[in-house]
Amino acid sequence: MSQRRFITQGEGLPQWSTPISHAVVVGKICHVSGQISVDAAGHYVPGTIREEAVRAFANFFAVLRAAEFSSADIVFVDIAFADLTEIGEVNALFAELFPEGQRPARTIYQAAALPMGSKVKVLGVAIKD
Amino acid sequence: MSQRRFITQGEGLPQWSTPISHAVVVGKICHVSGQISVDAAGHYVPGTIREEAVRAFANFFAVLRAAEFSSADIVFVDIAFADLTEIGEVNALFAELFPEGQRPARTIYQAAALPMGSKVKVLGVAIKD
Amino acid sequence: MSQRRFITQGEGLPQWSTPISHAVVVGKICHVSGQISVDAAGHYVPGTIREEAVRAFANFFAVLRAAEFSSADIVFVDIAFADLTEIGEVNALFAELFPEGQRPARTIYQAAALPMGSKVKVLGVAIKD
Repeated sequence: MSQRRFITQGEGLPQWSTPISHAVVVGKICHVSGQISVDAAGHYVPGTIREEAVRAFANFFAVLRAAEFSSADIVFVDIAFADLTEIGEVNALFAELFPEGQRPARTIYQAAALPMGSKVKVLGVAIKD
Repeated sequence: MSQRRFITQGEGLPQWSTPISHAVVVGKICHVSGQISVDAAGHYVPGTIREEAVRAFANFFAVLRAAEFSSADIVFVDIAFADLTEIGEVNALFAELFPEGQRPARTIYQAAALPMGSKVKVLGVAIKD
Repeated sequence: MSQRRFITQGEGLPQWSTPISHAVVVGKICHVSGQISVDAAGHYVPGTIREEAVRAFANFFAVLRAAEFSSADIVFVDIAFADLTEIGEVNALFAELFPEGQRPARTIYQAAALPMGSKVKVLGVAIKD
């Protein structure tokens, strides 16, 4: 039996019209698609950088739960900004979301543009022990 | 015996002068380098966004085959655009390349510039069961 | 016993105030955070593209060592540039850092901006056999 699972729907997952999976799991590894500040209907919800980041991470974590992973399994997070000078707000949120000493590896950069004109996009990899 | 394989040449692979591997395989995991619209000689072939994306994905899949993986093993795809408003064309192609319900996780963004001035770059990770 | 290790400090590692791990290891897989040209105190050291890349890779390799991995374990490297026309210098360095035929897969792109205004950022994944 294949250990491969394609996460395309689940509780709290945004409905996307895009032809992708929210996440793909093979064995102990889960790759999660880029998440932005969209509501359950998949509509972009503009806000402050913190508001958008909170919603993007909430979607990220909802995808993980649908894949039967948790935020504690995250090993790597990639965060793209529309304006990298807003990193401070996202660092503050990151420190709240992940306990000290058990935080993911991470990379950040400023993109020329993000999907739907959003301010921030997050994606990552989770691995179970 | 090491399970590590460096994919540097193979049928249908672009000849690159850059000092990298097309892909590296360790065990069941294959990481593929960023692929753009280049021909077998490694020369950039400019085209419409669809033409460039078709060629970039063809190169991506050729690398996977050389690594003894297939497109069905892809778990994650990263697509960088020179112009993100062209996402619709790439979504249409993506829907053709991957069967519904078995599509990879994905992230997209607009870069400030891509190698050789190309319109689109694709890379990804494949994992066997 | 968990195989999960969070690399937050170690010999030669830059001191970061950011709430992230330098790397996270689960089993045979190590994800390394984006590294730029910073000194041991975490202060940005501006330089030529080569100088910044040398320092960024030195930090990358120091993180790998702290995680009990080596540069030979690297399977994938992501390099973001502030100016992609400087790729030639980084290709030359890449050829020095990794032996021919055993080089990582790689992707490159130009970001709209990088942390601390740096010229180059490198990150990657290492996997042991």
